[in-house]
Amino acid sequence: MRALRLPNWKSEPELTEVPRPEPGPGQVVIKVGGAGACHSDLHLMHDFEAGAVPWNPPFTLGHENAGWVHALGAGVTGLTEGQPVAVYGPWGCGTCARCRVGVDTYCENPAAAPVPGGGGGLGLDGGMAEYLLVPDARHLVPLPEGLDPVAAAPLTDAGLTPYHAIRRSLPKLLPDSTALVIGVGGLGHVGVQILKATTAARVIAVDTRDDALALAREYGADLTLRPDSDAAERIRAATGSRGADVVLDFVGADATLKLGVSVARTLGDLTIVGLGGGTLPVSFFGVPYEVSIQTVYWGSRPELIEVLDLGARGLIKPKITTFGLDQAVDAYHQLRDGTLEGRAVIVP
Amino acid sequence: MRALRLPNWKSEPELTEVPRPEPGPGQVVIKVGGAGACHSDLHLMHDFEAGAVPWNPPFTLGHENAGWVHALGAGVTGLTEGQPVAVYGPWGCGTCARCRVGVDTYCENPAAAPVPGGGGGLGLDGGMAEYLLVPDARHLVPLPEGLDPVAAAPLTDAGLTPYHAIRRSLPKLLPDSTALVIGVGGLGHVGVQILKATTAARVIAVDTRDDALALAREYGADLTLRPDSDAAERIRAATGSRGADVVLDFVGADATLKLGVSVARTLGDLTIVGLGGGTLPVSFFGVPYEVSIQTVYWGSRPELIEVLDLGARGLIKPKITTFGLDQAVDAYHQLRDGTLEGRAVIVP
Amino acid sequence: MRALRLPNWKSEPELTEVPRPEPGPGQVVIKVGGAGACHSDLHLMHDFEAGAVPWNPPFTLGHENAGWVHALGAGVTGLTEGQPVAVYGPWGCGTCARCRVGVDTYCENPAAAPVPGGGGGLGLDGGMAEYLLVPDARHLVPLPEGLDPVAAAPLTDAGLTPYHAIRRSLPKLLPDSTALVIGVGGLGHVGVQILKATTAARVIAVDTRDDALALAREYGADLTLRPDSDAAERIRAATGSRGADVVLDFVGADATLKLGVSVARTLGDLTIVGLGGGTLPVSFFGVPYEVSIQTVYWGSRPELIEVLDLGARGLIKPKITTFGLDQAVDAYHQLRDGTLEGRAVIVP
Amino acid sequence: MRALRLPNWKSEPELTEVPRPEPGPGQVVIKVGGAGACHSDLHLMHDFEAGAVPWNPPFTLGHENAGWVHALGAGVTGLTEGQPVAVYGPWGCGTCARCRVGVDTYCENPAAAPVPGGGGGLGLDGGMAEYLLVPDARHLVPLPEGLDPVAAAPLTDAGLTPYHAIRRSLPKLLPDSTALVIGVGGLGHVGVQILKATTAARVIAVDTRDDALALAREYGADLTLRPDSDAAERIRAATGSRGADVVLDFVGADATLKLGVSVARTLGDLTIVGLGGGTLPVSFFGVPYEVSIQTVYWGSRPELIEVLDLGARGLIKPKITTFGLDQAVDAYHQLRDGTLEGRAVIVP
Repeated sequence: MRALRLPNWKSEPELTEVPRPEPGPGQVVIKVGGAGACHSDLHLMHDFEAGAVPWNPPFTLGHENAGWVHALGAGVTGLTEGQPVAVYGPWGCGTCARCRVGVDTYCENPAAAPVPGGGGGLGLDGGMAEYLLVPDARHLVPLPEGLDPVAAAPLTDAGLTPYHAIRRSLPKLLPDSTALVIGVGGLGHVGVQILKATTAARVIAVDTRDDALALAREYGADLTLRPDSDAAERIRAATGSRGADVVLDFVGADATLKLGVSVARTLGDLTIVGLGGGTLPVSFFGVPYEVSIQTVYWGSRPELIEVLDLGARGLIKPKITTFGLDQAVDAYHQLRDGTLEGRAVIVP
Repeated sequence: MRALRLPNWKSEPELTEVPRPEPGPGQVVIKVGGAGACHSDLHLMHDFEAGAVPWNPPFTLGHENAGWVHALGAGVTGLTEGQPVAVYGPWGCGTCARCRVGVDTYCENPAAAPVPGGGGGLGLDGGMAEYLLVPDARHLVPLPEGLDPVAAAPLTDAGLTPYHAIRRSLPKLLPDSTALVIGVGGLGHVGVQILKATTAARVIAVDTRDDALALAREYGADLTLRPDSDAAERIRAATGSRGADVVLDFVGADATLKLGVSVARTLGDLTIVGLGGGTLPVSFFGVPYEVSIQTVYWGSRPELIEVLDLGARGLIKPKITTFGLDQAVDAYHQLRDGTLEGRAVIVP
Repeated sequence: MRALRLPNWKSEPELTEVPRPEPGPGQVVIKVGGAGACHSDLHLMHDFEAGAVPWNPPFTLGHENAGWVHALGAGVTGLTEGQPVAVYGPWGCGTCARCRVGVDTYCENPAAAPVPGGGGGLGLDGGMAEYLLVPDARHLVPLPEGLDPVAAAPLTDAGLTPYHAIRRSLPKLLPDSTALVIGVGGLGHVGVQILKATTAARVIAVDTRDDALALAREYGADLTLRPDSDAAERIRAATGSRGADVVLDFVGADATLKLGVSVARTLGDLTIVGLGGGTLPVSFFGVPYEVSIQTVYWGSRPELIEVLDLGARGLIKPKITTFGLDQAVDAYHQLRDGTLEGRAVIVP
Repeated sequence: MRALRLPNWKSEPELTEVPRPEPGPGQVVIKVGGAGACHSDLHLMHDFEAGAVPWNPPFTLGHENAGWVHALGAGVTGLTEGQPVAVYGPWGCGTCARCRVGVDTYCENPAAAPVPGGGGGLGLDGGMAEYLLVPDARHLVPLPEGLDPVAAAPLTDAGLTPYHAIRRSLPKLLPDSTALVIGVGGLGHVGVQILKATTAARVIAVDTRDDALALAREYGADLTLRPDSDAAERIRAATGSRGADVVLDFVGADATLKLGVSVARTLGDLTIVGLGGGTLPVSFFGVPYEVSIQTVYWGSRPELIEVLDLGARGLIKPKITTFGLDQAVDAYHQLRDGTLEGRAVIVP
């Protein structure tokens, strides 16, 4: 079968012929229906090098995957051939305290995972191929009615990551609260939709790009603004000087972290989602009292089920452009050049 | 000043002249802007008798009140004359563990409250008068911009009660969950609005009246049905046979409790809001495992702030018909006869 | 190998020779180190009949099991031969929302489970044999240092069940709160230990037997009393008239439920653990406001890990008497006759 | 009456004669029974200068106070003369969202508070005098049986602060978890006691002083160690390489923050209690995933009730040395010189 593979670090992916995988005991092969192209894939191609992560090329790209069950390994129950499924992307050891409740992202025994700290498209073969080997049936989530694999694929990361970030803050997103979304890009624009669908919090969105702010307004943001010098002041004014109960930083640069912490309300949350490379200096008098500052990485398997439900009901709708496998390299070029509208999904 | 007073148990209210109240230390007199007429007032007039509650007529009716600060007693801070405010209705002792966090509804030292287990319009003089004496400034909540006393008054009970019932269940009202609203009347129709505004749960509404079901659909209910013999089966079908994560029974009769428990999902909530007089027999094998069954009464002061925010932003909109003080008796007659559209608010 | 099997409903168990099991893909065979004898086994022998549950004899008894990994089926990872393990007893479908987070007790697709609503010793072969087939490796939890299979076996049920009941109430078991334990028997006496180890709540224990009350005091109960006519009054007196924040009814009879609800504090929990066959009538004015009334059944897999930790550290110590396989019938007779000291553990 | 007053910034306190206070409406005067001397008072004397805080000397010192109700202002209910009470120290506006639920520490309208961001002994007259004016009766908490004002006074800060820090983390302090206490000084040694009394978490204590470590062991710490170069490695070894679920840094220096974050478990808490002046640089790859990093300041009024209960039952026992008012300056000298055993409590 054909597969888009990364042959080495610091190289372009190549469409090559590889053997079709066969499922071992407990494993499942799915026929890929959609595989999302993610910004982090560009980092894999261009920025990573040996030693950065505990795994190396070659492997097939694609960590946002959905499709149909094609072949079941020995001992697999609860799935039937032809059934549409989404693939939960982080593949942990399966037996530690985290994996046992579906939080493979924070697997505590990575040495026992199929690949330490990775998954399909991240060290192991991913979904940019006709078929995908999933090493444990537990990673498959049946698609709810109303959601096809093309629409489902990006939800497994671009939907799951902002959902996870928001879900941890739900107890603070009551009416009369404010959520601040910094960065209305690939994850942030889904974040605005999730906030509006799941809470009655006011939403303030910050971005440097006017079209991103227009998109935020379209999705229901109550106030949008550019990160100008008066941004903090305007956010304070809009919140009765209390600040934002929850700050979701989808950029993660020094400047956005600084803005976020300057307007966070005491007892609030500041969540770092974006990989912008910034650092926030935290000290007793340097941050508002009891603001919980933390990073988040991807999401959990139970949360994926919830995200798919939101998607199936039209409550979150990531913008999508589809490409064939032989157009996948072009899709990444468009992604790199910023000319892509919405999320690229490869349809083999 | 004029006041609509209940002179005795088992009697009609009368519009009479009474002295205008003066605030003592820590107290506040408000000029009434709106006082809601509630079904429970009909019970006060017709069904109560001496000994049923620890207080007796005569007193002025009206326990859903909002208006403007008129006069501040000695030592009151944080309020200014003319400021629009809503009145939190349950008035407890102020010093027990419950009252300290604004849960006067469950005051644990009622003997030390202004009136045990009551409040303004419930043993003490209420808001169906030109002025209302509030015995402790802590019961006043400033109105947010966009909400006037007429619109605010019914939110203090008809809004607060369903909000409180829903808020305790928010952790179970995630996406991919279902809320069942039984009874789309005065509280239930606000309940549907609150569910839609604050969660992404699916909402199923049950009522015997077609117009109530139409109203539920207008407010966003995903499925509406009559409590016919196949109701439980249809609810199971609509939830993939799991049942409802949260059942809100705004009726509270034997039949509605029976329906509710028969479709409750394990680990779910069944909350009894309505005073329908029903009894639910609970036994180990008679209810789904770990369904939390409980009653709720009114709500807390912090929750009132949240409800007012929902109201000010148009996310909940109780239907209202206004009456003058001299039309108040007529308003109760319409309420009794079921000919009233929406909530009656008396505007002195 | 030898196994203690229930040949039919309404019959005594028999020690018979059966083939040693072999593990299929994803399965594990353990060498049994300890298998607890539970009161519910007596119900299996004497009270059940065809149709009561969706499974039938013959099967090997024993649903409280621990031992050592003996043989791993194809595809099993994360376990090694000889490793000491406890067996999580409820075996669900493995793929529904409940099973995915280790709550097999409330499996929502029982038709896809190894046996609907059961497990080893409950429809499938259990641990009262030399070897036990565990149908999915996820049911095994490694034993922490300091805990051997004999001590671990009863923790999987007699420890896990009260732990689960208490854990759901932890947010209400803060200092200045009171837990009421009704019934200091096989589960209740462990409940007292768990409360003392994991909270600073005051503990009041109620039992008809003086030696049970003495045991409760030994484990740290702050007040013990018999369920005499003044019991409710004494509990109110001991709690400043507030009542018990959490009532754990390990009996579940009409009388104990009545006592429990009569002393439950508003906003508290009343949890029905015992299978005493009682019914609690719940109505708006019949129970304290917002007392959450619910049943619980066994516990979850993550909770089993926590219980084993408490056991390994000596914070809970169920009393144990050991028997050989050929004494197992005698152990059940002692259990039936009430002459057994502590939990009987069969050591094959 | 006599009072120990701070006359100016950068000066020693002086014992002087001042008028006895009289209570206005809603206010209470208490006869002081005990007033704790706190390290932060040394900062007031030596380190503060005009502009550092929104208030200035002169004022009477002492922000850890307990005593007996002496005189009630007009309108005060729920208290009686002679009743022993503790004083909740942070005095906010009383009407913002925080103050309404007893979290005056994070008052959102400090301009309306008696003194912005302060309280008795912090800008207003404190408890190192014969009588103390409490500006709002809500700040008084009746002492439970078994606790006298001398023992209660230090609990209002040295007990409340660590309690608040721990209470926010209770959901993560289940069995099989680990709490790391850095700094077993005035607050930290109470923290160890609180952890042991309210959870079954393992406790690891770190301090540079052998006697502090011995004290931690006496209070039940499972492991104690010095912050040597192998400290992180030893903590990882003791936790099965997972790290500490909850890190409580009672020092707050660069080095302790660095140690804490290096051993924090993913999804854990790192709470900065100490004013050591350190800064923790937080970045996406620089801290374990989803460790919630936050500061805490003092505690809430409901928590004070819980702390007093722990104290009354002997579950926390701060070490105390008492001094008369005329020895108070000497007490501060001993505190400054590190020669004081336990907490100094001034008994006027």
